[in-house]
Amino acid sequence: MRATTIHAPYDIRVENVPEPVVRLPTDAVVRVLRACICGSDLWAYRGEAPRQPGQRIGHEFLGVVEETGSEVDTVRRGDLVVAPFKWSDGVCDYCREGLTTSCEHGGFWGSVGYDGGQGEAVRVPFADGTLVALPKDAAGDDRLLSALVTLSDVLGTGHHAALGAGVRPGATVAVVGDGAVGLCAVLAARRLGAERIIALGRHRARTDLARRFGATDVVAERGEAAVEAVRALTRGRGAHAVVEAVGTEQSMQTAVRIARDGGAIGYVGVPHGSGTGLDLGVMFDRNIALRGGVAPVRAYIPELLPDVLDGTVDASPVFDLTVGLEGVPEGYKAMDERTALKVLVTA
Amino acid sequence: MRATTIHAPYDIRVENVPEPVVRLPTDAVVRVLRACICGSDLWAYRGEAPRQPGQRIGHEFLGVVEETGSEVDTVRRGDLVVAPFKWSDGVCDYCREGLTTSCEHGGFWGSVGYDGGQGEAVRVPFADGTLVALPKDAAGDDRLLSALVTLSDVLGTGHHAALGAGVRPGATVAVVGDGAVGLCAVLAARRLGAERIIALGRHRARTDLARRFGATDVVAERGEAAVEAVRALTRGRGAHAVVEAVGTEQSMQTAVRIARDGGAIGYVGVPHGSGTGLDLGVMFDRNIALRGGVAPVRAYIPELLPDVLDGTVDASPVFDLTVGLEGVPEGYKAMDERTALKVLVTA
Repeated sequence: MRATTIHAPYDIRVENVPEPVVRLPTDAVVRVLRACICGSDLWAYRGEAPRQPGQRIGHEFLGVVEETGSEVDTVRRGDLVVAPFKWSDGVCDYCREGLTTSCEHGGFWGSVGYDGGQGEAVRVPFADGTLVALPKDAAGDDRLLSALVTLSDVLGTGHHAALGAGVRPGATVAVVGDGAVGLCAVLAARRLGAERIIALGRHRARTDLARRFGATDVVAERGEAAVEAVRALTRGRGAHAVVEAVGTEQSMQTAVRIARDGGAIGYVGVPHGSGTGLDLGVMFDRNIALRGGVAPVRAYIPELLPDVLDGTVDASPVFDLTVGLEGVPEGYKAMDERTALKVLVTA
Repeated sequence: MRATTIHAPYDIRVENVPEPVVRLPTDAVVRVLRACICGSDLWAYRGEAPRQPGQRIGHEFLGVVEETGSEVDTVRRGDLVVAPFKWSDGVCDYCREGLTTSCEHGGFWGSVGYDGGQGEAVRVPFADGTLVALPKDAAGDDRLLSALVTLSDVLGTGHHAALGAGVRPGATVAVVGDGAVGLCAVLAARRLGAERIIALGRHRARTDLARRFGATDVVAERGEAAVEAVRALTRGRGAHAVVEAVGTEQSMQTAVRIARDGGAIGYVGVPHGSGTGLDLGVMFDRNIALRGGVAPVRAYIPELLPDVLDGTVDASPVFDLTVGLEGVPEGYKAMDERTALKVLVTA
């Protein structure tokens, strides 16, 4: 089959690789219908996250089950399924607590020896714990498939950020970061009943999308000016709930400074750089909490799925470029050069 | 009247100062029955927190109302009252949300121009918002007065730490720090239903007190060995809820490392040093939250008071040295030299 591989920074290829097969009785093989390129894939692309030459890549996908191991109970051949960005066994203490990202047997797609989502098919470990079955008739609905594949990562990650930030009905929320995750956090905050959602971002196309997703205000300034703008919008106090969806020291500094005393920062931007950007003295004096991390999206899919199916929550507009599998290298280039927000990969 | 003043590092005196009077209609004057010396008073004592020569000091006290301004409604002359370590107006948005430490009109005892708790009497701003009336007959019960004065700071601060750490019935809790606040966090965790409480500390007298307060395990090791010991006690996983009651980089590092994935650190140790001690990469991967800060103890007094009055919660054993007002300088010396855990000051 054909699958995406990474050989060196900026060297992404689509190559012939062996067809996946069921190796363990808990495995399934899934034929991929939709995949995505994630902002975090760019770290490997740019050489910031090391990869061995030829490693697979891609951690967001949905598709059709082709084969299952003898112990797989919850999905069967022909089922339409979505996979979260990490696999998990579904039965360990962490999985039962909903923290599937800490699963004792969990792992990342594209790790050495494992398939990635940006390919024709994927061997899925712990299929019962990992995969979630979707209505079969969704397979014929292009828009819905695009919306459903966001359950793999960005929608669930935005939801995790909103939960971490403590979004409640009536809350004022500020979202730092206008990437796909930040935009999904806007959607998630609206879904959780936020009354006011302030999106921070400088890219008009993205902030327009933020407004479409529920943002009530947009702050295009950065740094000190952004802090002042958010405070001006909140009677000088800041936002109860702040989402940090970038991961740089500067974005975390901004997040702390725009939080209201007693508020919380929900952070899902993977930390970059050597410092934290946190001023613990300020956080202490003002009782600002920090909650978040790698999102256990598998645990969120059952809750979010009905709203995606009925169209209440539709993150599919984050995809502004669609490529076929052979076009994946072009998709990386477009995201790296910021000419695309997020790339959808079709079978 | 006589009151404690600080003139320079290690220069604490008890001097004649003017009698406090009601200056504003929202003021009250309280004659002090019990006060304390706090670990945080030592920063001023040691010169780590700058003070102007002659500034008052002490932020924990209870006493009898002597005079009230014309607008004071909730307490009257002769009432026994306890004061939290910051005054607050009780009516602003933050006070109504329970975050009295962020009160728009709040302040610290002993600030320039204000009385401190380690004196014969105190002018109390915003008496309605600040003071909490206690049963008058408690004034005759020495043990109970000692327990009640901990509502000024250490008991409420321990409670804040336990809440920040997310202590719930059945939780495993680890407490970093065996000072009075750490010990009160043990009490608070037990009160909130923790099943297992691991106290980290090296001082036998203190860890014995931790056991008396509800600790089920004591870890005397520090650094790497402490982390290993806590992990050994928790099937390798760490504690759901970790209290950080020291405020150094090392203690925060330990707190992160002994937290279970998905757990939380409740921090009430005032941050010292230039770094945070936080490894955001580890916290991100393991979804460890950080919540806490300066404790809004005023908001907690109504909840904690019944348990203190009926003896269910008794933090009075944290006092291992009692002095009269003239003995306050000796009390500072004992705490600075760690021959005393916490000093009670009697009228």
